[in-house]
Formats: sequence, structure tokens, C-alpha cells
Amino acid sequence: MSEKVVNETKMVGKQSIAFNKPPFIISSASIAGKKESEGPMGGLFDVIQEDPLLGKNTWEEAESELMKLAANKALEKAKLKNTDIRYLVGGDLLGQLIATSFGIASLEIPLIGIYGACSTMGEAMLVGSMLVEGGYAGKVLSITSSHFAGAEKQFRFPLDYGNQRPYSASWTVTGSGCVIISDQDQKPDPSKASVIIKGVTPGKIVDYGLKDSLNMGACMAPAAYETIKQNLEDFGIQPNYYDKIITGDLGYVGSDILKDLLKEKNYDITTNHMDCGIEIFNQENQDTHAGGSGCGCSAIIFASFVLRKLISREWKRVLFIPTGALLSQVSFNEGKSVPGIAHAIIVESVG
Amino acid sequence: MSEKVVNETKMVGKQSIAFNKPPFIISSASIAGKKESEGPMGGLFDVIQEDPLLGKNTWEEAESELMKLAANKALEKAKLKNTDIRYLVGGDLLGQLIATSFGIASLEIPLIGIYGACSTMGEAMLVGSMLVEGGYAGKVLSITSSHFAGAEKQFRFPLDYGNQRPYSASWTVTGSGCVIISDQDQKPDPSKASVIIKGVTPGKIVDYGLKDSLNMGACMAPAAYETIKQNLEDFGIQPNYYDKIITGDLGYVGSDILKDLLKEKNYDITTNHMDCGIEIFNQENQDTHAGGSGCGCSAIIFASFVLRKLISREWKRVLFIPTGALLSQVSFNEGKSVPGIAHAIIVESVG
Repeated sequence: MSEKVVNETKMVGKQSIAFNKPPFIISSASIAGKKESEGPMGGLFDVIQEDPLLGKNTWEEAESELMKLAANKALEKAKLKNTDIRYLVGGDLLGQLIATSFGIASLEIPLIGIYGACSTMGEAMLVGSMLVEGGYAGKVLSITSSHFAGAEKQFRFPLDYGNQRPYSASWTVTGSGCVIISDQDQKPDPSKASVIIKGVTPGKIVDYGLKDSLNMGACMAPAAYETIKQNLEDFGIQPNYYDKIITGDLGYVGSDILKDLLKEKNYDITTNHMDCGIEIFNQENQDTHAGGSGCGCSAIIFASFVLRKLISREWKRVLFIPTGALLSQVSFNEGKSVPGIAHAIIVESVG
Repeated sequence: MSEKVVNETKMVGKQSIAFNKPPFIISSASIAGKKESEGPMGGLFDVIQEDPLLGKNTWEEAESELMKLAANKALEKAKLKNTDIRYLVGGDLLGQLIATSFGIASLEIPLIGIYGACSTMGEAMLVGSMLVEGGYAGKVLSITSSHFAGAEKQFRFPLDYGNQRPYSASWTVTGSGCVIISDQDQKPDPSKASVIIKGVTPGKIVDYGLKDSLNMGACMAPAAYETIKQNLEDFGIQPNYYDKIITGDLGYVGSDILKDLLKEKNYDITTNHMDCGIEIFNQENQDTHAGGSGCGCSAIIFASFVLRKLISREWKRVLFIPTGALLSQVSFNEGKSVPGIAHAIIVESVG
């Protein structure tokens, strides 16, 4: 009997998972840079860092500091210590995840290092929720970060070069976002709703052959399309099942492509779609072109705006789909395409 | 009742996990380069690639090809198709995991991209085994790779520069190894033993402040020490519980440090320790100095030599601890230390 129940399948359809005992998101933190604080969401972030170097010597050290601040803030908000977190799941955009390694080492929490480009927050939450629901951990911290200057140096041109940016280019968000996932609920305010992770749809690599690293929205839209379509098919639902379908950082260009691709399959998300890359900056006066991007973009929007909407019960069901472009400087210089990936997380407001 | 059993804890001690229903390793593959084929383990690898470029134009494409060959070989050996694998867990040493992204995209299996430097095979197996035991997947493919020329270009000097290598330097293995982890056993030969993953100990980042990227064994040994010590403490066992304690790629320098560190805590592993970095090359005549390294090193030794010993029942219990050095070219050039990480997998021969 016992064995049978333990093995009860949680697999749904081709690619998705529905949790038997959905874990809770009990805390979150969002640390953002100055430009992000000047955008429409600026008032919602936990901490604003005016200094892009955060008092450090390099962009990489600055990004590590962002991550450390985010992890500590989420612990503080939940009145937890580092030793209360069994595993940390995290990653970032820098080669060999150095923002993460140097950022969270001092927390001394066992690390599952992950990489999904700008889909990393989705991947961190899907692995984190499985660790908790599988009975492997009581509490997991899922975290990611990005830094505008570090990302430009890593993937495109150093800032000092002063290159022009086409309108299809996005602006990498400086920020770090994280959530604490737990097998037990813990609410600071009993009158508010709890937030659970109901299920996930891990994504495949999708490559339509696009090669423009300054149009990442177009590169990632097909991956978002495939993952959303699979989520709807696996669960046998329509887009209106969700109050919001929230993509990571497709921006203006990629969001239009996504909606068109889904429309071809008779899925209409025009009324309930939102993209974190579109929401984070004011396109009119922030010179951010196609929108925000970077792992930090969807992470800080989720940890601030999206969670607030769920806790206040304004939204009941959300599909959160961070999107990543799997390029490197080397693959780009060698003329390779920019494959995309997107992981979907079903987040719900309960109680 | 049902709920209670599903939540039955699998957490052991501070950091470890013991599976209620240990998943099976039902297939494996090891693809190796020419130099690896000339070492003591040369006869055990599934496929040898004499051409370091594998007919491709770049080192990165060559490494992707290694990974593709490994995944397909493991599927073929188990008479499985790509659609039989629910999720793929994998990563590599190249910035933004391009060997993996371009190597496995054509398999069209949802991807959990991970990074643990040369500990990646351990991380792939620990995430893969949790995916299966947690009821999230029937079969998972855990994979990694490395390539000598790609790694030198990524982390140190391009080969054409012809730099001298100190005796503490290791030689990055050209190869890709993978395993298929399943909730159901499947034996090609019923007279042989089955191999299960009994539990895992995910590791913390350990940084003793060493900065020498040409002495990675010394940088990683403290991480191996911490993870092994924690595994023994969590399960309340002594080193002789295991027939073999197998580290990833500490090499000669790092292995000596590991044994000394454990001896200080009264743990003696001198009789049952083995290091994949030491075993893969012949130090006398292969000019490989401190030994082999790279994600591929422990992966191909595990997928060939170690699994054979378990299947033949020569070894009953093995602790497999791939070790990683969490540096990047950027962190090294910025004068940062080289933190280490090590993940331990308890593998046993049964039946």
C-alpha cells in the first residue's frame, strides 16, 4: 500500500506534472537597480540599489551582491535562517554561473546550479517545487539574477564601446528575484490568500533558426508557444483557464509573435497575456526599445507584482513562463542560431 | 492516509536523501576521444572518436556531437526511443551550456539544464533520480560532456598558444557519458545484478581561497571532503560501508589532500578510494600530469568501468562524488578564488 501511494504518478500528458500536494510559496524578494525603480513597477520592489556597482569593483561582483541581498531579504521576510533552507536552486546568465557561485556561497546551503538563460527563474521554481513536493526538502530557495552591464559585456559589447541598439533589442534588467518554496504554509497576514505551485511544464529546446542576438524576443517566442500549447494540451484546458498567462521577457516583438503562433492553433491569449519584459520599463521614455530581459526581469516581476496579485486574490490562476535564449558569445560568433527554451509554472491563489 | 504516505520524508540528516523506492540505472553510454582510448580504461568505452573535431568545424560543435552520440547510444543499448525519455538533465563546461543546447536539441526531450562544473554528472544523476523517484518521470536521461580543446580555449589558453602546463595541471577529458534512470528495472542479461541509486548528498560551495586554475585538484578537494564527511555523518556510517568511494577528477594532488583532510576527522579512505582523474590516463607515458578532469572524466568512467563492477557484483556499494571547480575565465582574470562543489550519489548493486 505504502509503496503504491508513493509511486502515484504525477505525470500529466506528454510533458507536464501536477503535484499531489502542491508546495507553498511562503516568501519572496526583489532587488532592483535604479532604472528598474524608475519603471512602472518601481514602487513594488523590496530594495532599490541606486549604485550599479553596489560598491563592488566589477559588474560580476555587483551581480553576486544583488543575489546575496535577495536571498537574505527573502529569509528575513519569512523570519527564517539560512539553516532553515535545505537546498538552494539557482543560476544566472554569466558563463559558469559565477554570479551565483560567488553570490550565495556564504549562505552555506547545498546548491543545485541550473542554467536556462532567461528562463532560469522558471527552472529554479520547477526544480525547487519538485524537491519540496517529492519529500526531499522542507524548504527550498529558488533564485536568479541578471545585470545590464555584466550581460552586455558577456553577450554583446562592453558598455564603453557605445554601440547602437536596434529597436528589436531588449534591455537586460539589473536585479535579483527569489522565492522560498515550502511544504508548510506560512502567512504573515492570515487575511490574505496563500500561493501554491500546482504543477509545471518543463520545456524543450525550440530552434526556428533565427540568429539575431539583438532580437531575442523573436528567438524565444517559439519556445514560449510550444510550452504554453503543451501545457494547455496536457491538462486539456483553454487559455481562459488562467487569469493571466505571463511570459518572461519576450518584449513587444516576441509577444506579438507568440500571440500569432497560438492563434494559428485557435488559442487566443490576447486578453489575458502579460509579458514581464513589457511591464518592467516605460517604452515611451526609458529608451528600452523592445522591453526588459534577463533572468532578473521575470524574477523580480514575479516576486513583487505577480505574487501581490495572487495574495490579494485579484488573480486566482496564473501560468508563469520565463523564456530563455540559449546563446553564448562563442555560439553567436560561430554563426549558430539562437535556440529558445521556456518552462511553465502553474501558480494559484488558495484560501 | 494517502497524503501522509506521499509526504513521508526522505530527508536524512542535514543534507542527504534516502530514496523510498530507489530508481534503476538501466542504460549508459560512454563516448571517448583518442587519448582517452589509449589510457588504462580505453577498452571499456562504447565508442572511440579518433577525430577530435568529429568532422565538425569547431570544438564546440565537436563536443555537441559527442553528447548527441552518447544520448543516442544509451537509448540504443536499452532499445528505447527519444520519446520514451520524459526529461533530460544535462550540462557542460562551456559558457551558457552550448555543448548541451546544440547537442541534444534534436532529441526533442524537455531539458533541465544544469551546471556544476566537473561535478555535473553527479548533479545530473541526483536531479534525475529525484525526478524519477518523486513520480515526475518514468525515465530520465542524465548526461554531460567535456572536450580538451574546447575547455582549454574556454578557461585557459587556446591550444595554438602552446603554453607550458605545470605538474599540478590536469588534462580535460574529451568525452561524453550518460545514464538512463528509470522507475522500472530493465536488464539486458538476467544473470547480472541491477544497479540502483539508493540516495544522494547534494553539496555546498566550499571555498578555501585557492586561486590557481592550474591546480584544480587542490581547489576541489575541500568540497569533496565536506560532501563525503556529510554523507557519512548523515547516514551514521564509516567509510568502509562503501566498497569504493569514487571521486570525480581530483587527480593525484587533490586526492592526497582529500585523504589527509578526512584523516584529520578519523575517516580513513586510503584502502577504498578511487579517483576517475587518476584512473583514466597513464601518468607515466601520457603526459597528463595531475590526471584527467572535465565533466566527461567521471561521466565516462562511471558509465563504463564503475557500472561494470556493480553489474558484475564485484562491488556492492559505491559512493560516487563528481567534483567541480566553479571558476570562469572572467572570475579568474578578476583575481577571484576557485570555489569547489561536489555532489555524492549512493549507487548499489542489487539482485
